Amino acid sequence: MPDFEPDARLVADTYPITELPLCQLRLMDDARFPWLVLVPRRHEVSEVFELDERAQRQLWREATQVGRALLEALEGDKLNIASLGNVVAQLHVHAVVRRREDAAWPAPVWGHGRAEPYDPDALAAMRARILAELERLDLGSGDQGSGNQGTGDQD
Amino acid sequence: MPDFEPDARLVADTYPITELPLCQLRLMDDARFPWLVLVPRRHEVSEVFELDERAQRQLWREATQVGRALLEALEGDKLNIASLGNVVAQLHVHAVVRRREDAAWPAPVWGHGRAEPYDPDALAAMRARILAELERLDLGSGDQGSGNQGTGDQD
Repeated sequence: MPDFEPDARLVADTYPITELPLCQLRLMDDARFPWLVLVPRRHEVSEVFELDERAQRQLWREATQVGRALLEALEGDKLNIASLGNVVAQLHVHAVVRRREDAAWPAPVWGHGRAEPYDPDALAAMRARILAELERLDLGSGDQGSGNQGTGDQD
Repeated sequence: MPDFEPDARLVADTYPITELPLCQLRLMDDARFPWLVLVPRRHEVSEVFELDERAQRQLWREATQVGRALLEALEGDKLNIASLGNVVAQLHVHAVVRRREDAAWPAPVWGHGRAEPYDPDALAAMRARILAELERLDLGSGDQGSGNQGTGDQD
């Protein structure tokens, strides 16, 4: 879907990492928290339930599995997964690795203090880490353009 | 699962509404926000990914569908869905109907100001409203105690 572009505020706050079967995977530019943002490549969708059921499942699957992989790789304490969208209406899901000693714990990360942008080396390291973890995952095939509702849906 | 009891802090902060196929559905005792809490009837689970894939799907399905029903019934502006668990480790998912004029908008609801407990009439009305909306939903059968991975999974 080459014509897909996330909301300008998401683009401004995050770095693109890769394309998952359904979502564009991005990294929030805040080195305080390992904070992923998944943006389904769908136009004019703001609520999870506006996706068809198959895409809903794929969205949660991608957020849960990618979040888990990063949590385990970084030995975090808790995974926070959330679809909020009160500020940026375009549907996106946050998957944030939390640590008991992080800047906001135990509060949620949204609106907490000021973001600390990555320096280039730290950004490159985090991106490489995420991509390495993704190689181990089976995220299925998503539901893009396939009329076959039976594929890509195995447990 | 008669022996299931949510964490004492969840019990203290919420009212039980009903049992869904996977989750106990509860209402946060805060009249500022129509705020559902879904607690999977599973012991010693704190992360979504600790559920099997079938239960994960059921959890998100219940949160999304019940949240949507309440959003539409109350003509809210946005649905927030989140699994956080930084304070209460027992797995639970929030589904919160947001309004552009609510007490926290556009910030998340967690940790925002002080809860305003329901009075008995308002609580009874909200519970009745939720139960009426649930009657319209097809939440599937969940995965409790069934060895048949093929049932209850239709779109």
